[in-house]
Amino acid sequence: MRLHHVGIAVEDLEAAKARYLLLGYRVVAEGEVPAQGVRVALLEAEGETLLELLAPLAPETPVGRFLAKRGPGLHHLAFATRDIEGELARLKAAGARLVDEVPRPGFGGHRVAFLHPSFGLGVLWELVEA
Amino acid sequence: MRLHHVGIAVEDLEAAKARYLLLGYRVVAEGEVPAQGVRVALLEAEGETLLELLAPLAPETPVGRFLAKRGPGLHHLAFATRDIEGELARLKAAGARLVDEVPRPGFGGHRVAFLHPSFGLGVLWELVEA
Repeated sequence: MRLHHVGIAVEDLEAAKARYLLLGYRVVAEGEVPAQGVRVALLEAEGETLLELLAPLAPETPVGRFLAKRGPGLHHLAFATRDIEGELARLKAAGARLVDEVPRPGFGGHRVAFLHPSFGLGVLWELVEA
Repeated sequence: MRLHHVGIAVEDLEAAKARYLLLGYRVVAEGEVPAQGVRVALLEAEGETLLELLAPLAPETPVGRFLAKRGPGLHHLAFATRDIEGELARLKAAGARLVDEVPRPGFGGHRVAFLHPSFGLGVLWELVEA
């Protein structure tokens, strides 16, 4: 596997985009994932690992609750796999607590699945089929 | 710039290494940075972005205080640059609050500098000369 992106919870998407532009990042995709209550901007720089800025569409959403509890900041790590069902089965057999037993549609048309942060020792892990 | 590594605060370095081995990561370097009061394990998988596991050597260290306040989890983003003084000057001129006005030695012999997380909108940014 490789690190596909780092998810970052932000309060103001425009302000956050401007801040990462200072580091040489550019916006390669942007849109809403209504099922997750989130607006997403995907940023790319020289390397292959992307940054995914996440702004909540409402307070009572996963990212809205994260912001209320912890404030803006690093939110999750997403790892790319070519076989998401296979990886989920393998990690479940290794003791992982899965948030998503089956993959669901994520941003950009990729299938994704989250693991419970207790398994990532405080880090929310996402698998992305890519 | 590109994303050089993601720093992750952990309570138990051996347990964390074992967890990331499940994702295909391997330890490529490990050692202590006494000046920062931290033991570091650098992990690599297929991609170029590394994971840097950080375990405190004592409670009264930056990572020890982070763990006491927020628990284990994502700690910082490190961006690679070939000209760390030039980048620091450029970011300072853009309004950045610098933790390190001049680079200092980091893990693995790289020169590093941290920016205040308020400038990263809740994300601790590190520059790494690499």
